[in-house]
Amino acid sequence: MSAAYHSLAEKHREIALIQSTSSILDWDQETNLPRKALNYRAEQLSYLSGKIHQLSTSADYQKSLETAENAGAADTLQKANLREWRHQFDRSQKLSQNLVERDSKTCTLAKSAWIEARKQADFSLFAPHLSKLLELSKEKAQRWGYQDEAYDALLDNYERGAKTKDIVRIFSQYEPELEQLASAAVAKSQHSAARSLKGSFPIASQIKLNQQIAESIGFDFDAGRIDTTTHPFCTTLGPQDIRLTTRYDETDFTSSLFGVMHEMGHGLYEQGLRSSDFGLPSGTAVSLGIHESQSLLWEAHVGRSPSFWKHWLPCAQELFPQLQDWSLEEFLNTINQARYSYIRVDADEATYDLHIMLRFDIERRLLNNELKVDDVPAAWNERFEKLFGMQPESDAQGCLQDIHWAMGGLGYFPTYTLGNLNASQLFHAATQKPEIQKAFNEANFSPLLDWMKTHIHSLGSVYLPQDLMLQATGEATTSAYHLAHLKQRYL
Amino acid sequence: MSAAYHSLAEKHREIALIQSTSSILDWDQETNLPRKALNYRAEQLSYLSGKIHQLSTSADYQKSLETAENAGAADTLQKANLREWRHQFDRSQKLSQNLVERDSKTCTLAKSAWIEARKQADFSLFAPHLSKLLELSKEKAQRWGYQDEAYDALLDNYERGAKTKDIVRIFSQYEPELEQLASAAVAKSQHSAARSLKGSFPIASQIKLNQQIAESIGFDFDAGRIDTTTHPFCTTLGPQDIRLTTRYDETDFTSSLFGVMHEMGHGLYEQGLRSSDFGLPSGTAVSLGIHESQSLLWEAHVGRSPSFWKHWLPCAQELFPQLQDWSLEEFLNTINQARYSYIRVDADEATYDLHIMLRFDIERRLLNNELKVDDVPAAWNERFEKLFGMQPESDAQGCLQDIHWAMGGLGYFPTYTLGNLNASQLFHAATQKPEIQKAFNEANFSPLLDWMKTHIHSLGSVYLPQDLMLQATGEATTSAYHLAHLKQRYL
Repeated sequence: MSAAYHSLAEKHREIALIQSTSSILDWDQETNLPRKALNYRAEQLSYLSGKIHQLSTSADYQKSLETAENAGAADTLQKANLREWRHQFDRSQKLSQNLVERDSKTCTLAKSAWIEARKQADFSLFAPHLSKLLELSKEKAQRWGYQDEAYDALLDNYERGAKTKDIVRIFSQYEPELEQLASAAVAKSQHSAARSLKGSFPIASQIKLNQQIAESIGFDFDAGRIDTTTHPFCTTLGPQDIRLTTRYDETDFTSSLFGVMHEMGHGLYEQGLRSSDFGLPSGTAVSLGIHESQSLLWEAHVGRSPSFWKHWLPCAQELFPQLQDWSLEEFLNTINQARYSYIRVDADEATYDLHIMLRFDIERRLLNNELKVDDVPAAWNERFEKLFGMQPESDAQGCLQDIHWAMGGLGYFPTYTLGNLNASQLFHAATQKPEIQKAFNEANFSPLLDWMKTHIHSLGSVYLPQDLMLQATGEATTSAYHLAHLKQRYL
Repeated sequence: MSAAYHSLAEKHREIALIQSTSSILDWDQETNLPRKALNYRAEQLSYLSGKIHQLSTSADYQKSLETAENAGAADTLQKANLREWRHQFDRSQKLSQNLVERDSKTCTLAKSAWIEARKQADFSLFAPHLSKLLELSKEKAQRWGYQDEAYDALLDNYERGAKTKDIVRIFSQYEPELEQLASAAVAKSQHSAARSLKGSFPIASQIKLNQQIAESIGFDFDAGRIDTTTHPFCTTLGPQDIRLTTRYDETDFTSSLFGVMHEMGHGLYEQGLRSSDFGLPSGTAVSLGIHESQSLLWEAHVGRSPSFWKHWLPCAQELFPQLQDWSLEEFLNTINQARYSYIRVDADEATYDLHIMLRFDIERRLLNNELKVDDVPAAWNERFEKLFGMQPESDAQGCLQDIHWAMGGLGYFPTYTLGNLNASQLFHAATQKPEIQKAFNEANFSPLLDWMKTHIHSLGSVYLPQDLMLQATGEATTSAYHLAHLKQRYL
């Protein structure tokens, strides 16, 4: 290792120490913070992010980066790290201090306006903020630069190396088939009378079941934990400290359970990263589309499968005696119902990606000046009607439902669909191995987890997402495997 | 305010941001940290403490301090802050980097040796470490300087401005009277058959009772919380974020309750500090002897008093039906028993300070070269026999019971007794006001808390501890009020 590379890596380890400290403060804010402590916590966080900004954009940093690049990389890992550091540094250099501050201020105001607008179901309260955020997104895209369209530059924030034209290509193959499939799945669910799971499920028993399941799958509780928050999330507070959260609904134990399965998928990815490279790209998850593939793999492919419940339904029945007369088939039928719904986060597997396509289309038209902000609700409702055969009763159920735009996150949504497609494609590739498939019969998912560790987790950001998919599955992301999965599950 | 003072104060606010961030990491380590996360957490903490050290000892800091001193103080608060900053800076300058590092390393090794020695009840495993710690303490004392004896220099770490001769004077008046009183109290308790409280007390109900009591006394749960740890403590994570912890014993609800009362006393002090001066001496607690007075005031003077239990015993009886046939008198008799015991932390009010006198005497003789480390167990047991009329069966019950020496904390112990004496003296002074006394009849302790806020909490470190006592009570710390309190409680 060159001294120059070593010194640059040390700078990044220092940044990671501050970044992970900041994550501890964030986690504590979500789980524990007393109400009046919020202001000082914001000061602590802002102090730490100032330090990170300083360390990662200084002239001294730039010099270290150049020196390390000139010294050259000794191996694949170093090469990948230098590639990612250069990429991050160039992008951060292209934004002026002034733009970053305007952006942060606009987001803060937009977020509280969005909360109010959603509460009152009044888009006009949010529209001026969305206009400003759109202008800022365009400005950022111009500064970052792109080949085909502005959306490319934003997408790269979340899905390293992805291009809009690739998303368009994938979506245009996927959408007509998905529309048909969703329609058939919803019709089928309507005709099969599903038993209701609603009942009384003591939270202590839910916690016990979730813990048993997470442990059995391989989440390491010596290097992580599960807590309770309003919105479930997964965060990394150190190389061996991965925290999941979920929320509990006393009337439905599957709500917290699928929350845990989802966040645990993220957590297993984080626990599977090369911990000696914590804070370096080679020890960091590569993209949202890959991250989401891991959460969906465990939530949907494992957590909603017959082999999983063949083992776990009897355990649930012991903890929740009211389930004792449920057959496995009845239970699977109930948890795998398809129906059209207004809210993305409540959607099932069969209809989820329709929600994403609608959003991707609107975002792209906004950025390409083909749609005005004031016309967003009408465009939303028209498209919704076409996809779902119904219209939201208000914008709170429609274009105001998600926080992403209010946080300046244009370009984020497509990664959810990439996650769905990647999950199915990876699951298909892994289950080509007979021993992985066979272990499912004993509800043993360790061979599946090992495969993910080898082909995804341990590789960090060494390869760009599409190269990673290619190496792991032999193909770039395609919708074929997800469509096949949905067909098998719903039809 | 002079620009120089302002700039120095800003430096201290920055240090406080890092210090409080570090406290969040410490708190999380005690309450939540997964086992394998310990190493990286240590790296995060060490990084932050390095930053604090750098900011508070740099040439730049020294220059700011001198400039501010030359510009002069505009008022009492500024004057006090400049006094404390100078004191801290001078003390830190007197220790070489080399000494600080040796000290930290020796403590780390001594702590694990102490754990093992206590487990095996074998003082010889700890003795070589204690010898090194003693040499380091002597070296620090020499560097810091003192008038009368080395102990002075160490004591000042914990009790700003205190001198050994003052402790000796107070203790020599206090000890003979306390020995007599303890002996009488123990004899009386032996003859009054106390009912046993042991039973089954569900933890959820204990949490509820503790919370109700803390809230009723005035602990602000919007600016604090109570969690569970092995060793109870109180820590400050920000000006409005005070965290208490306690431990639960399912067979005895008073264990967690008195733990909460004690830590809440610390917490009320912290919540009562001038929050706009967070991180400055004027917004910081002044000493351990004053801090401990606040915890003991609420635990012992309020929490073990008839007026408190007249109100709270019925509430406890509702939550714990097995208490229903207990009379107030029976209950008070049970929670206020005196008995000789080996372990300091289990001691009652009547015998507690005997444990401290023994330790103070041994520490002082070690520092004055009147006692060898190898002779500590014999000296301990001899003195213990004289004070308590019995001998520990092993050193685990004797000179190996406390962690303080293993952490290099020589000079710490006397502050516990100062805390006891200050608590009684402050309680006596406050209850001279008839309205404070009268409110006790309705279990209303708000006027008492208000008095403490005015005379202690809000003054931070503006006055040295003994000046603070003088202003609040008209006298420096004396044992008279505590002896009177013990007589009333036990005889």
